[in-house]
Amino acid sequence: MKTIDVCLSPELMHLYEIENRTVVVVDILRATSCMVTAFAHGVDSITPVANLDECLKLKTKGYVTSGERDGKKVEGFDKGNSPFEYMGEQVRGLKLAFTTTNGTQAIEKSKGAKEVIIGSFLNLTSVVRYLLLGENNVLIVCAGWKGRVNLEDTLFAGAVVEKLKDYLGPDCDAPLAAQHLYNVAKGDMVKFLEASSHVKRLNRLNIHKDIEFCVTPDQYKVIPKLKNGVLLA
Amino acid sequence: MKTIDVCLSPELMHLYEIENRTVVVVDILRATSCMVTAFAHGVDSITPVANLDECLKLKTKGYVTSGERDGKKVEGFDKGNSPFEYMGEQVRGLKLAFTTTNGTQAIEKSKGAKEVIIGSFLNLTSVVRYLLLGENNVLIVCAGWKGRVNLEDTLFAGAVVEKLKDYLGPDCDAPLAAQHLYNVAKGDMVKFLEASSHVKRLNRLNIHKDIEFCVTPDQYKVIPKLKNGVLLA
Repeated sequence: MKTIDVCLSPELMHLYEIENRTVVVVDILRATSCMVTAFAHGVDSITPVANLDECLKLKTKGYVTSGERDGKKVEGFDKGNSPFEYMGEQVRGLKLAFTTTNGTQAIEKSKGAKEVIIGSFLNLTSVVRYLLLGENNVLIVCAGWKGRVNLEDTLFAGAVVEKLKDYLGPDCDAPLAAQHLYNVAKGDMVKFLEASSHVKRLNRLNIHKDIEFCVTPDQYKVIPKLKNGVLLA
Repeated sequence: MKTIDVCLSPELMHLYEIENRTVVVVDILRATSCMVTAFAHGVDSITPVANLDECLKLKTKGYVTSGERDGKKVEGFDKGNSPFEYMGEQVRGLKLAFTTTNGTQAIEKSKGAKEVIIGSFLNLTSVVRYLLLGENNVLIVCAGWKGRVNLEDTLFAGAVVEKLKDYLGPDCDAPLAAQHLYNVAKGDMVKFLEASSHVKRLNRLNIHKDIEFCVTPDQYKVIPKLKNGVLLA
């Protein structure tokens, strides 16, 4: 039986062997939700970038600068971190340079894995099918918030563990904890998340609509995948 | 309102400021359960020691060597890591030198806090009352398993958060996650923990009786407290 494990914070990555695993990076609010949305609407590529300067450098090479710091759009950037900015005809064919507080850092730490894919509730069933049919053991890497564990990424991890429970065995206690939390929350995830620190932070930024969208399963089928440091559909 | 936070693994300690907090170190299976049991039965002091050699050095100074590595008693040590070894008249007045895989490492990393106390289900209500009446914000440090998050320590953290929910506000998402898990588990914690990796590991060592005892609330009232590197009642 293949195994599934969950790394609840990028700060715990050194505890997990990733060379032979498929790593799923998740940052529900909102980096990986944006990425999935962007690919579903036809962007050409997304280059995850750890810092702002590097992102701005890529702008001179024709990339569209995207992302956030502390939940807010970066001054001088073309796009922020709301999935609604990555919809419609105008994103088709774009090359995005993307940097966020947590999500792109988690991708950075996942390099070295056998393969790295991008997960969100928006492409949940596609991710679950992909992992089921793949040959590798699985590690879900939650981006968290500045190294701390967060609820929304943990819920996504729990959803994957729950849906694969008859096929992939948990490697440790973190997948079990995530699975329990998902089963408590799944009836109304928005309500469950209302007390969460990041949702409170985001509600202050008036993006309740983003939050509702980001926890809606199966809007898209695309699975972004990292190849030579660049995400492709 | 005072705040309460939960550090789910000692590997995340650098993310938390501890100078002004009361830190509760917890290693339910079984280090902190042993420590509480030992003080309840009259040991004089427990000196937490990070490695085996240091522990054996203290033996020459009249200390009783105690603890485990990978769940098993250490060769040449006087006592192992079962709470039942720390009961009865024969432990009264002893000075213990204690080292375990996870618990004593978590204590080591908590030095520098305003104060450090030892928690377990066995002294749960005493710990809750102490935190309620104290002036400091609270951080519960889960010892985990070799850096990874475990269920049993998280449940204890959740029990404390739940019991103090009207008095101490959560600082982050980890206390909320722990609280939800405790509320799922509290009806039958032994059953809830049956799937946990550490409980499976311990069941292979035939210590089901230890596990049942270690999740029984309120057997003792004592609160061990760290003073100059030594635990006292």
